[in-house]
Amino acid sequence: MFFQSSDLSIRLKSETGVLPDTMTKFRKVSGGVTAAKGFRANAVRAGIKKAGLDLALILSEPVSRCAAVATTNRFCAAPVALNREHLAKGRQVRAVIVNSGNANACTGQRGLADARKTAELIAEQLGCKSVEVLVASTGVIGVHIPMDKVDAGIRDVCGLIAESSSSDRAVEGIMTTDTKPKSAALRFPLGGRTVTIGGMTKGSGMIAPNMATMLAFLTTDAEIPRIILRSMLGRVVRRTFNRITVDSDTSTNDTLVLMANGASGATLHSAEGKDAEIFEQALEEICSDLATQIAADGEGATKLVRVLCEGARTEREAERVARTVADSPLVKTAMFGNDANWGRIVAALGRSGTRFDPAKVDVYLGRVRVVRDGGRANYSEEKATAAISGKEVAIRIVLREGTLSAEVKTCDLSYDYVRINAAYRT
Amino acid sequence: MFFQSSDLSIRLKSETGVLPDTMTKFRKVSGGVTAAKGFRANAVRAGIKKAGLDLALILSEPVSRCAAVATTNRFCAAPVALNREHLAKGRQVRAVIVNSGNANACTGQRGLADARKTAELIAEQLGCKSVEVLVASTGVIGVHIPMDKVDAGIRDVCGLIAESSSSDRAVEGIMTTDTKPKSAALRFPLGGRTVTIGGMTKGSGMIAPNMATMLAFLTTDAEIPRIILRSMLGRVVRRTFNRITVDSDTSTNDTLVLMANGASGATLHSAEGKDAEIFEQALEEICSDLATQIAADGEGATKLVRVLCEGARTEREAERVARTVADSPLVKTAMFGNDANWGRIVAALGRSGTRFDPAKVDVYLGRVRVVRDGGRANYSEEKATAAISGKEVAIRIVLREGTLSAEVKTCDLSYDYVRINAAYRT
Repeated sequence: MFFQSSDLSIRLKSETGVLPDTMTKFRKVSGGVTAAKGFRANAVRAGIKKAGLDLALILSEPVSRCAAVATTNRFCAAPVALNREHLAKGRQVRAVIVNSGNANACTGQRGLADARKTAELIAEQLGCKSVEVLVASTGVIGVHIPMDKVDAGIRDVCGLIAESSSSDRAVEGIMTTDTKPKSAALRFPLGGRTVTIGGMTKGSGMIAPNMATMLAFLTTDAEIPRIILRSMLGRVVRRTFNRITVDSDTSTNDTLVLMANGASGATLHSAEGKDAEIFEQALEEICSDLATQIAADGEGATKLVRVLCEGARTEREAERVARTVADSPLVKTAMFGNDANWGRIVAALGRSGTRFDPAKVDVYLGRVRVVRDGGRANYSEEKATAAISGKEVAIRIVLREGTLSAEVKTCDLSYDYVRINAAYRT
Repeated sequence: MFFQSSDLSIRLKSETGVLPDTMTKFRKVSGGVTAAKGFRANAVRAGIKKAGLDLALILSEPVSRCAAVATTNRFCAAPVALNREHLAKGRQVRAVIVNSGNANACTGQRGLADARKTAELIAEQLGCKSVEVLVASTGVIGVHIPMDKVDAGIRDVCGLIAESSSSDRAVEGIMTTDTKPKSAALRFPLGGRTVTIGGMTKGSGMIAPNMATMLAFLTTDAEIPRIILRSMLGRVVRRTFNRITVDSDTSTNDTLVLMANGASGATLHSAEGKDAEIFEQALEEICSDLATQIAADGEGATKLVRVLCEGARTEREAERVARTVADSPLVKTAMFGNDANWGRIVAALGRSGTRFDPAKVDVYLGRVRVVRDGGRANYSEEKATAAISGKEVAIRIVLREGTLSAEVKTCDLSYDYVRINAAYRT
């Protein structure tokens, strides 16, 4: 039913041209967050969410340098606040503990104490400092986390991870009502060594009532100074995870953590040069792949919708145009209905707040040009409908104002979106 | 099924406190856009839309001073561009001609020529200058308007309006797939005379595929200098029509026209003083009433949702908070599902871009406080559910950062919204 992520990354490469030829050096491998050397992961059922694994642990041995980004939502959850504190104090990360089923958001001082206790329990089990532990939560907002269950679960998962590592179980442990697990890993040569970047993610809007959050965890066995790690991650996230939208709602818990433990023996000494370029490309490829998996698995999604804006004066303007179109419920419902309704696309474009000359605008659905010079192009309605009736739709807007472009990925808006979100919490 | 506008205006008054005691002087009257002296209106079927009346004319005798606001969409429709030109050149308006079924948007130079010809045909029939005629269109984007039908229709409607005036027919003539006609009128004493303000409007998002546009036409028999009319209208529209949202999409054709012909003998000489205050209050009341009718008749709406933000530092911040919550598809689907899901409200609030201290926030659903000091309040789930299960829902957010407030009105997001918008254009 859904579009395959492995296909996508290749198509994205060739069509958007974001990633240059060095891409061919990247080899997809299995193992997700555990594909890189020195990372283990596993999950147990602690009984926090209704069914399934709900407490996942990622372990770095040796210890990792770390960069992270988190939600800008003012109601940030307790774990988000705790991680900020830990990353400010500490310089390395040993473990990330993630629970699903409870967001620990809007839970006040007690919520913060619960998150802190969680990190302490992990530190105790692993024999590390609690500032070396990060915490992430996803699930119901406004309910205190059941610490007795977390306590018992932490003993279980620490015991289990000592025996075995399972990327698949870890992914399951962080899912709420995602319809599919989401992970990816790439392997490539770097400075004469072989380096791997792996990752897993979850989220598809705020899937079930009160369930929120995009979480992503990335691991690499390259050794990278923290300052380089942070600037790379900032740039890459801006172009990948920050360019997907399911319903324009930003969660209280969004967290992305990138850990680099150096276990491959490869070291990135400088932010400049070919090695840095290669690593950043691989990181962008992984993040783009994971982000696209989220968009394609959006709530009620029947198709992935890629909105590309070309010929903008700035990348920021291109992104704003693409995002406005991608967020338009009228465009999204038209995509669901296989309706090549370009009037809605230009209406969204026109209200995007971007300066452009309407008389120069072209719009394509797939390869069919439906708008030429700001008015209806000469096209076959049949072909336009065919172009948007598949599992993946490409909307391309050409402004002819400059040379910059940006792509935002989303999904369509279906009856199921309403069904999923209108259901009573039970 | 739907909420009655006459009830609403009274409730809005008392609950929001926007309108002070002088309100009691305003008496609701029938007749909509023709209630004020010296205005006639009627409509005919010209055959532009599939069925029903589709060409409406509003006539002012004596000639009116006029203020207007129009869409900020870059793809503004041809009539919007023409009106801008006419209002810049001319100082008075004799007639407004409105067609439904075709938006005359994205139609290039020919579209502009068609709009210009439409004004000229009216001017010819009425024996006035074409700059004294305004044109408005709503309907399909990107299709040229059938000028032969417009030509014949204009003769018909000019003949008909000479014989009879009908507010009801005029309203029908501007509707696309609104489920109900929308008009209102108020009468009140002003400077020793009796003054009337009337209006009609249409729109409920972009109802049917490719149908767009909010249109509103207001008439008054007070005499008001144009400069006062314009500043009043600007302030009032900002607080009324600009504070409703169905799906956050701004159409290419949005147009609001206010005409003042002085036929009552009452004159507003100054922008200051009691008379100006009374008139502006009446204008706000009419605009609020009409705007609320649009929100309540939003695409697929089963209920009106009023989002009030109180205790903000600025009115602009209050509006931004209210609008972010009102635009959230997650909040709107929860309202459709009668789910008192306040986690989604605080999540939207938190991403609104407004500065506030989460620990001071209270949220009410109707009279039930569900969030206290940023966390879950002690409330009965049953009562919270009851508070949002009616035909009208009030969400109140108290920031405790300042003294200013703003309310944004919207509707819920239902299966019917998707059904209406996902249907093929046929």
